[in-house]
Order: sequence, then C-alpha cells, then structure tokens
Amino acid sequence: MLGLQNIKRLLLGKPIATKHAHDERLSNVLGLAVFASDALSSVAYATEEVLLILVLAGTAAFNGLSTIAWALCGLLVIIVSSYYQTVHAYPEGGGSYSVSKANLGAGAGKIAGAALLLDYVLTVSVSVASGVSALTSAAPQLEHMKVPLAVFVVIFITYLNLRGAKESGMVFAIPTYAFIVSTLVLVVVGVVQGIGHPAVAPVITAPKGGFHEITLFFILRAFAASCTAMTGIEAVSNGTQAFRKPEAVNASKVLIQLALLLSVMFVGMSWSAQHYGIVPHEASEPGYMTVMAQLATRLYGANSLGFWITQITTFMILFLAANTSFAGFPRLASLLAKDGYLPRSLMSLGDKLVFNNGIIVLAGLSCVLIVAFGADTHNLIPLYAVGVFTAFTMSQSGMVVRWKRMGKTGLPMIINAIGAIATGVMTIVLSATKFAEGAWVTIFAVIGVILFFNWSSRHYRYLATQLSVDEDDTLPEVKTMVILLVPRMHKGILRAIAYAKSLSQDCRAVHVTLDPSGVQHVKEDWIKFGSDIPLVILESPYRSLVEPLVEYIDETIAIEPGMMVTVIVPQAIPKYPWHRILHNNAAVPFLRALGGRRNVVVTNVRYFLK
Amino acid sequence: MLGLQNIKRLLLGKPIATKHAHDERLSNVLGLAVFASDALSSVAYATEEVLLILVLAGTAAFNGLSTIAWALCGLLVIIVSSYYQTVHAYPEGGGSYSVSKANLGAGAGKIAGAALLLDYVLTVSVSVASGVSALTSAAPQLEHMKVPLAVFVVIFITYLNLRGAKESGMVFAIPTYAFIVSTLVLVVVGVVQGIGHPAVAPVITAPKGGFHEITLFFILRAFAASCTAMTGIEAVSNGTQAFRKPEAVNASKVLIQLALLLSVMFVGMSWSAQHYGIVPHEASEPGYMTVMAQLATRLYGANSLGFWITQITTFMILFLAANTSFAGFPRLASLLAKDGYLPRSLMSLGDKLVFNNGIIVLAGLSCVLIVAFGADTHNLIPLYAVGVFTAFTMSQSGMVVRWKRMGKTGLPMIINAIGAIATGVMTIVLSATKFAEGAWVTIFAVIGVILFFNWSSRHYRYLATQLSVDEDDTLPEVKTMVILLVPRMHKGILRAIAYAKSLSQDCRAVHVTLDPSGVQHVKEDWIKFGSDIPLVILESPYRSLVEPLVEYIDETIAIEPGMMVTVIVPQAIPKYPWHRILHNNAAVPFLRALGGRRNVVVTNVRYFLK
Repeated sequence: MLGLQNIKRLLLGKPIATKHAHDERLSNVLGLAVFASDALSSVAYATEEVLLILVLAGTAAFNGLSTIAWALCGLLVIIVSSYYQTVHAYPEGGGSYSVSKANLGAGAGKIAGAALLLDYVLTVSVSVASGVSALTSAAPQLEHMKVPLAVFVVIFITYLNLRGAKESGMVFAIPTYAFIVSTLVLVVVGVVQGIGHPAVAPVITAPKGGFHEITLFFILRAFAASCTAMTGIEAVSNGTQAFRKPEAVNASKVLIQLALLLSVMFVGMSWSAQHYGIVPHEASEPGYMTVMAQLATRLYGANSLGFWITQITTFMILFLAANTSFAGFPRLASLLAKDGYLPRSLMSLGDKLVFNNGIIVLAGLSCVLIVAFGADTHNLIPLYAVGVFTAFTMSQSGMVVRWKRMGKTGLPMIINAIGAIATGVMTIVLSATKFAEGAWVTIFAVIGVILFFNWSSRHYRYLATQLSVDEDDTLPEVKTMVILLVPRMHKGILRAIAYAKSLSQDCRAVHVTLDPSGVQHVKEDWIKFGSDIPLVILESPYRSLVEPLVEYIDETIAIEPGMMVTVIVPQAIPKYPWHRILHNNAAVPFLRALGGRRNVVVTNVRYFLK
Repeated sequence: MLGLQNIKRLLLGKPIATKHAHDERLSNVLGLAVFASDALSSVAYATEEVLLILVLAGTAAFNGLSTIAWALCGLLVIIVSSYYQTVHAYPEGGGSYSVSKANLGAGAGKIAGAALLLDYVLTVSVSVASGVSALTSAAPQLEHMKVPLAVFVVIFITYLNLRGAKESGMVFAIPTYAFIVSTLVLVVVGVVQGIGHPAVAPVITAPKGGFHEITLFFILRAFAASCTAMTGIEAVSNGTQAFRKPEAVNASKVLIQLALLLSVMFVGMSWSAQHYGIVPHEASEPGYMTVMAQLATRLYGANSLGFWITQITTFMILFLAANTSFAGFPRLASLLAKDGYLPRSLMSLGDKLVFNNGIIVLAGLSCVLIVAFGADTHNLIPLYAVGVFTAFTMSQSGMVVRWKRMGKTGLPMIINAIGAIATGVMTIVLSATKFAEGAWVTIFAVIGVILFFNWSSRHYRYLATQLSVDEDDTLPEVKTMVILLVPRMHKGILRAIAYAKSLSQDCRAVHVTLDPSGVQHVKEDWIKFGSDIPLVILESPYRSLVEPLVEYIDETIAIEPGMMVTVIVPQAIPKYPWHRILHNNAAVPFLRALGGRRNVVVTNVRYFLK
C-alpha cells in the first residue's frame, strides 16, 4: 500500500491540508467552466441527434429543425426557472437527490439518486465519445483508434481530477471560454452569411422501405432527441456548495448565463445546419464527419484554420463536459453514502480534498460503456436522457411539495409545477420513443442501482442493531501474549524486541527456519541481544514460512482460549519507493492465513532503511 | 486484502496444507504431459517457420525441407544426450541456471537465468499465438479476434495454474496424449499415402526482387528457423524435482521419450509438407491457414472430422505448452530470488504449493508480448530461439567444466563438449540470422534482466551490511502509549478496549467528530463502558477523519520523543466477502497519512460480524 502511495505522491503532488479547504471554492468564472461545460458541449451533438431522426422523413421534416430548436428553448426556460428556485431553496447543494428525499421521501430520493449516478457515468461516456468524433472528423486517419483514444481521454481526465478541484477549475477555464467564443463565431458567421442567401436544399437518400411518415410520435421522437441538449443543466444545482459565498446567488447567476449561452448556440447551430442543408453521416461510414464539422467545413472551408479551431475547441469542451461528472458524481456518491445507500468508503474526503474513490468508480464505469458501445455517440445517447429527465421530474415535484408544505402557493410553486409536468411528460416521451434503442438499459440499470441502495442500507441498519450495546454487555477480561517474528538478528528488529517487551510480560520470539543448519547462528545472535525473551525455533520442512507459525499459534490459543495473541512482524520500509518491489511484508500472507481466528492481532513494527 | 482473499478461495478452492507437498509429485505419464508439451507442440509451427524461409528461394530450396528436418534430428540427439548427463548430475533440478552458476560462476549463471526467464515468457506468447492460429485456421470468422482470444487463453491457463500442480497434471494429460496420437496418425497417413504417389510440385510465387540465392547464410537461416522445434527441451531438466523418486531416472526417461516423439513428428511433418507441395501463407492474408492445417485439409479433406481433430488437439497441446512455462518460470524465479537476484516475494511457496507471484508475473509479461506483436507467431519467433540456445550453451559448457574439475574426462565430458560447441555455434547463427527480425529485442532484454539482477543483489547485499548488528548495538528503552480509535460505542469495540488496557497503563481513547452535536452521546456511552480510559474528542471541521488524529499524534510524540505510540483501529470483518465493499478499514488511510513517522505502530483489532 505504501509503495502505491509514494507513486501517487510523485504523480499527483503533495496532499492539500484540510485547513485550506475554504480556498478551494470556485469563483463564478471558474464555476461556469467547471459546471456548465456539460450543458454547453451538448451543442456539439444535439443538433446531429435531431437531424438523424428528421432525415428519416425527408426534406419537409428536415426543415422542421429550427422549430424543434425553438421548442427546446421553451422547455429550457421552464427547467431553468424551476432550478433557479431549487438553488435558492437549497444553497447547501445536492440537487435532485436532496430535494426529492426531503420532500417526496426516501423512495423518490433513491430513484433520483440512481438516475443521477447513471447520468454522470453517461455524461463521461457520451462526451468523450463525441469529443473523439470531433477529433476524428478532422483527422480521419485516427478513425480506427476511437475506442483506445476515448479510454485514454477518460484516464487523463481522471488524473487531472485526482490532483484536486482548484487546479481543475484553472485547467478548464480557458478551453470552455475558447469553445464559447469559437461556437458563437461559427453561429454568427453562419447566420450573417446565410441571411443574404437562399437556403440550400438538403440531399437526403431515402432509407430502405421509403421515407417515414410525419406522425405525432415521429415529431415527439425528434423532440426527444433534442433533449440531449438539456443534459448537464442540473450540474450547477448539485454543486452549489462549490461556489463562493453567497453560494445560491453565485450559482443561480451561473445557471442563467449557461441557459442563455446554450439557447443561442443551439438555435443558431440548428438554423445554420438547416439553412445550409447539412445531412448527418452514419458514424460507421468511412470518412464520418459530425454535423458541426460539416458546418465548419462549409463556412470556413475544408481543413481551414477556422475548421481546425472549431474541432479542437469542440474536442476540448467535451473533454471538460466529462469533467463536470468528475466534480458531481463523487459529491452525490458521498451524500448517498452518508445516508447508507452506498459504501462508506465513498463518503470521506480524499487527501486532495476531492472524493478519490468516487472518481475512480466513475472512470471505471464510463470506460466500460465506451468499450461496450464502441465509442459511438449515437449508440450511447438513447441511454442518456431518460435518467436526466427522471431526476428533473423528481426534483421539481419535490419543490412543489415543499412550497405546499410551507404554505407558499404563489409563483414559485407554479413555476415548479409547470417544470414538474413538462419534465414528467418528457420522461415518458423519452422512455417510449427510445426504449428499444437503449433506454431499457437505463431503466434496468436504475432499478439495479436502487436494489443496491436497499441492500446496502439494510446491511448498515442490521449492523447498527447487531452491534448496539446492551445494558448487560461488559468489558471482557483480556490477557495478552506477544509473539515476535524473528527472521534473523539485524538492527531493524532491535526496536521491535524492545517494543514487544514493553507490551507484555509474556513474550516469545519465533524463528521459522527453512534451513536447520543456520539455526545455531540465529540462537547465538539471539542470546546476545534478545535479553530475556525465549526464542522458539519452528522447522518448516516444506518451505512455507506461514504454516508452522499458524500451527504454533493455534496450539497456543488451544491452551489458553481467553488469550489475545499479538504477533509482531518487523517490516522494512525502504527509502525509495522503487525499492519496495524487493521487500515483501510477511504480515500480509500471515494475516491471510490466520483468516477468522478471533484472538489474534497482527502488528507491523516498521523499520526505516537508509 | 481479506476481501480479495475470500474471492480467491471461492475461485481457487481450499489451500493445500504443506504436509501434502510430497503427494504433489508427478508420475512419468503426467510428467510427460506437463513438461514435454512445449517441445512437442513446436511441431505445430517449426515446419512452417522453415518453409517461410525456403520459399524465398523457390522450388529447389523448398525441397530441402526434409534435409533440414533430418539435420535438426542430429542436433537434437546431441542436445538430449547432453541434457541426459545434466539430469543425472543434478537431480535437484534447476537446469541451465544451476549448472552454469555452479560451474562457470555467477556471471554465466545470470546470463543463463535471464535467457531462460525470457524464454518462459516467449513460450507462453508463441504457444498461445500459435494455438489461436490453429483455431482460426479452422474457424476463419474468429480471425479478427486473435489478440483478445490469445489474452483470454493466457488468463485461463493462469487460473488453472493457481489451482495447483497436481490438478495441472491431470487436466493436461489427456490433451497431450490426444495430440501425440492425432499427429502421429497425420504423419503416418501422410507418409503412407505419399509413398505410393509422386511428389506434388509446390506453387511458389517469387517475392518482389526475385528469388533469393541459395547461399550458405541462407541455408543457415533456414536451419536456424528449424531450431524453434527445439525450444522446450530443457523444461524436463529444470523441473526434475517435480518427478517422483528416483527423480533423475524418471526425468531422463521422459526426456528420451520426448526426443523420440519430437523427431518422428517433425521429420514426418516436414516430409509430408514437402511431398504434398504445401506452401505457407502470410499470417496477414485473409483466410490464413497454418501449414499443419493445410496438410490436414489435404489428407483428410476440408472441414472433415480428421481436420477438426487435428486443429483442436493442436490448439490444446499449444495451450499446454504455454503451461510448461507456468510450471518452470516460477521455479526458476524462486531459485533466482533465493540468490538475491529477484525480489524475495518470488521466493516463497504460495498456499496452493505453487509459486503464485511468479505465475502472475509470467502471465502479465506474456500478455504484453501478445498484444505488442498482434498475436502473430511468425513475428514472435525471432525473439524466441536465441534465448533458448544461450541457455543450452551455458548449461553444457558448465557440464564440461564440471567433468574436468571432477577429473572425469571420459565420454560424458565429450558428449557435453560436443553439445556445448554445437549449441554455441547455433546461438551465434541464430543471433546473426535473426538479429534484424527481432533477436535484438531478446539480446537487449537479456541485458536488461541482468542489470535488474545486479541492482537487486546489490540492494540486498547493501541491506545486509546496513542492518548487521555490531558489538555496541544495544536494545533501546521503549515506553508504549496506546491510542484507541473509537468511532461510536458498539459491541465490536468492547474487546478492543479490553485489549488496549492489557497493553499499557497509558491508554487514551480518541473520537474524531464530524458533527459536534453527537459528542454528548458518545461521551455518555463511553462512561458506561470505557472504564478508566480517558476519552479525547477531536473536532474535524473540514470532514477529514485522518488529519486531526495525525496532528494529535504528532503533538504527543513531540512531548515524549522516546514513546512508541500504538494506535488501535477496530476493524469490522463481515461474514460474507461481498459485504466487504460496505466496510472500509480506517487503518489504511491512516497508515498512509502517518508516512515515515518512526514511533507509531498501527494495529487492527478485528471484530467479526454475524
């Protein structure tokens, strides 16, 4: 463990003292970079997702793109207004999970929590897959490397996040703003150039079996696809506590800025794609280019500087979008762990003031999804939005209940009610339209996670009952015997001998020998330094160090069952971490071999090598 | 650690008690299966390797195949005679490494040891890659899955070996004998059918730049390629100790059986391939078939039962060939570790009486090679034979020196001298003819491993000097203070309290609180059960459990620098291993945070949950 720890230090730098925790709060400029990149980056794939549906029904449907974009803006206004209330009502953060739990009860909280956990994982997978597509659109020779590239990107983000929150903010500010500027420029150029010229008719090849009819279900499907643009909007309210004081005011400012930026970008992008007749490619096509890359090619020219800037900033914002989850997932997991729904090891702060265990779990799960879905954004998307909208619905319903309970049935409650109804309807629409394409995976996964929550909390509750002290519990009487494991006499164990003697009158030193001819030497050395501790020599004809010792201990316990046997194992700690491979800690196999023996305590006394 | 351990138990079964170590010896029938599969299986690729050279020079060269096979048999007789001497001279096993070290000195021992370690790794990589080719020759739809398939096979062999040596023998006996039978049948059918009919002329397309001239170097190159058939022949003498008593007699019997089988198979296979004009494919060709698969198709018909039996038994023997290394590598690594050349953790027996750490290192390295070389046998082969022949040469030179020293300059010495010269010449030929194709990798790797040996033995020697006790070393005076970490009062820690009191008069209990409102409750509980141990409450405003405790310990040590502080951390041990993810051991982060503090001992007192 210590070897790993030193490698970690080398890679990640010195741990931050907890005293400095307050300095780690994010300014609004950094906060936007950290929490808004997810929502903004969805511009890179949302338009494409809508178009992939629309083209199934030919040119007339294709020209509905802008309308859908505007409709989405309407929904965005509803959701942001609703979250604005939430941020002010819950400045301590926690978002959908806290709100649902507090107002709708534990069951709703668990649904929201499970949905959000999955969303964080999917945010990483989708964003990284989409970011890598932005890259391969510009460099098609990397196309066959998509999966390893995506996994590499996840590992790199994990590394950055293990270094700590503040550095994350700094690293992420510049690319976020670069993307905002480059996308606004793209949109403005598109609109300005486009307005003077007539729209280009798209060239759409009919799918097998002819064009789809434009039914209500079809329109809903297209609108559902646009909802991917909305993912990430909840990140701000989950992370309110990461902002400087007053947290609610700062967080809600960032929320509104984010909504404005998102609307302008998404509507502008959709209008331009429609105006220039840009038809999406299948991801499996050789020479696949994203819709955004096609638009940039159209406006700036193939492989022009503007095109490259667009692709690189898109890659970078998507990289950062994945990072949003690395801020949010561990925080949520920690909240859930506090409530007993997740293992306690996810609860505590790591030594870099971020939640290390949560980060590692998130990275692992998202890599699994990336590999399983071949880093294809379009395959991953159907899994994505259902969870987001489930959490939205829970959160806003919770707010409605809250206002009612407080007797405040005015505008805020109406806003939240509208939000709850709108997102609730969309959750149903999303589940229905995307069920077969992959939403079923999410639905089953949410159920699976909730079952895990229940299992975990049942275990912790059972523990509490099992371990609670009764009136008639008393302190047991314990006698201690010390067994010191002696390899051969050397300087490192002198201190261990002295320590053993200080613990108990009843001390024995045990030497396990593989080679009986060396025993005499060990005995002589022992008499010189071992003072009055008796030395026991155990022979091991079959070359195991562990087995004879375990037998010896078992015999000892059999004689005095009330005895606690403390086994002291001297452990060498080398000066350099890379020397550790040359030193094994005998306590480890020993502790394993002892298994469930209740009366044995194994202790390492460390000695430090120069 | 214990969690992993339990999973291991589930997967690998109960550990074997050391008392049963003698029962694990192999009978000759099992010994042939375990140690000879490597050498025998090389028939599956050796003919192909020779042909890949010969076809470069057209039909005339192609017809030299049988001649080369017979020449190889001559070399085989020399080498086996030589190893026959070795097995009898060194019944305790160890092969080239022991022989070189004992007779030629540490330097030669290290060269032989490094060469053999690499060979074991390459045996796994080459055999598995070749086995997977046998499979994909029959099932071409699996062709693009070669690398993952090969990695999976390595993992599976690793699993089998972690279960123990005897089971390995049982699992491996049937397939080895199935291969022997099926290959002998193939060869007999080939020869019998062939003798009555004229030879088929091979259809060889000239390489770019025309056919190669048949120079002496070219002939040596082809002969060098045939030497891959010889790999694995040393496994028996390295593993003599795995045989039943009298080990030398049994091992040498198996060695001779092996040489006979190998000769018959290789000569028969080569004669048939030549007679039927079978030209090898490039591995990158779609629909690639091994030479053996082509021969089986020719003799039995495409996709016939005979063809499938040949392919499956070939796959299985190659699978087992990889297993040879899993028997040999850990044994050799253990010998090297005993001499201080490798980490001591490779020295000891695992609890299944096999060398677990060595097995895992071997599996890891061979997977790296498989992935790096795309599971292509022909790419891996050039790395392979140089190491084998280096070890041969070292071993036989060592034997010559041994006879000389013993004054026995008769036939055995002459046999070993011929062996040493023949293999020495072949080592030079192999290095020269295959240098650019990949032998350079082996040469550099051997040098790298030797440098590691030196670094390791230097470190252990330095340690021995640094730690050796002097006349003026005395036992230090040590006072012990006990700090008991108290989460909240529960049944599990009652025993820990009693244990703490038994260790020292100077005991304190420390409770770190994240939530000051709960402190009163902890205090009340403490008074009820804590008896006379004072309770210290440490507040942790920034939510770290570890930091306040480390500060407290630092303050304590500062007051009394001679004090040993024993920190007792109660640890819950759940009944079922899968519950472990819900329990984290507070001692682990704590031990990390304490880093290099010399005066602190951290001890877990375990309590077992029902």
